[in-house]
Amino acid sequence: MQLTRAADYAIRVMIHLAGLPHGTRASRGDLAIAAQCPDQFLSKVLQALTRAGLVTSHRGNTGGFELPEAHSHASVLEIVEAVEGPIHLNVCLGQGDSCERRSWCPAHNVWQQAQDAMATVLRSSTIDNLAQRAVPPLHSEQPQWN
Amino acid sequence: MQLTRAADYAIRVMIHLAGLPHGTRASRGDLAIAAQCPDQFLSKVLQALTRAGLVTSHRGNTGGFELPEAHSHASVLEIVEAVEGPIHLNVCLGQGDSCERRSWCPAHNVWQQAQDAMATVLRSSTIDNLAQRAVPPLHSEQPQWN
Repeated sequence: MQLTRAADYAIRVMIHLAGLPHGTRASRGDLAIAAQCPDQFLSKVLQALTRAGLVTSHRGNTGGFELPEAHSHASVLEIVEAVEGPIHLNVCLGQGDSCERRSWCPAHNVWQQAQDAMATVLRSSTIDNLAQRAVPPLHSEQPQWN
Repeated sequence: MQLTRAADYAIRVMIHLAGLPHGTRASRGDLAIAAQCPDQFLSKVLQALTRAGLVTSHRGNTGGFELPEAHSHASVLEIVEAVEGPIHLNVCLGQGDSCERRSWCPAHNVWQQAQDAMATVLRSSTIDNLAQRAVPPLHSEQPQWN
């Protein structure tokens, strides 16, 4: 029961982008350093974030990756789910009404409540707030995630 | 970010054992049916639960598996951790002081708070309470987890 590495890197990428002045584009190389993210993960992460619209990709000399204004308040939950898909703490929570044990299984509600408690925390944390809290190291001249 | 199948089966096994009259031993076959658990998972689950002392194993004609009285109030968290090891929602939470980003990383506290919220729910649910809520299906003559 652990966040995937890709989702962890996605949060780091988004914190870096949210910490840049609005409209600034970051190169793939900048993101790899800022998020301390290996190349094979970065491709997967940027694909997932772009597909979800949480990041926009621009080609050419002035290209790069940018956090759209509309998503500057994206929650940690949105970012995690963009990479991992919907969170289901136990497999039964993803089965909707098709779980045959649902009507009487005493564990179902426990998984649901635990998932809700976790999701509430992740939903209440927005990427712009996290970036503000990271201001000193993000604005230093050292790679931020070393 | 999902519970392993083994941990899910472990909870089912424990609910079944906790629903039996004190001192009753269940055979491996009974547990496989009650928890609707494939054999390769059942071996892993019973090994982990026995190693943690949450289940005792008895050999011979009157042998079987039993929930010791001392562990009748085991929490869902204890059972999950007996199978999966300590829960660390993100890898950084398992690194103790060795995570170099810990002192300033804005995401660290979010993962910690989300983990704490989830663990609080899982810690407050005890196996004897869950078994009591499962009384009607557990005491039916049908396999309980069908």
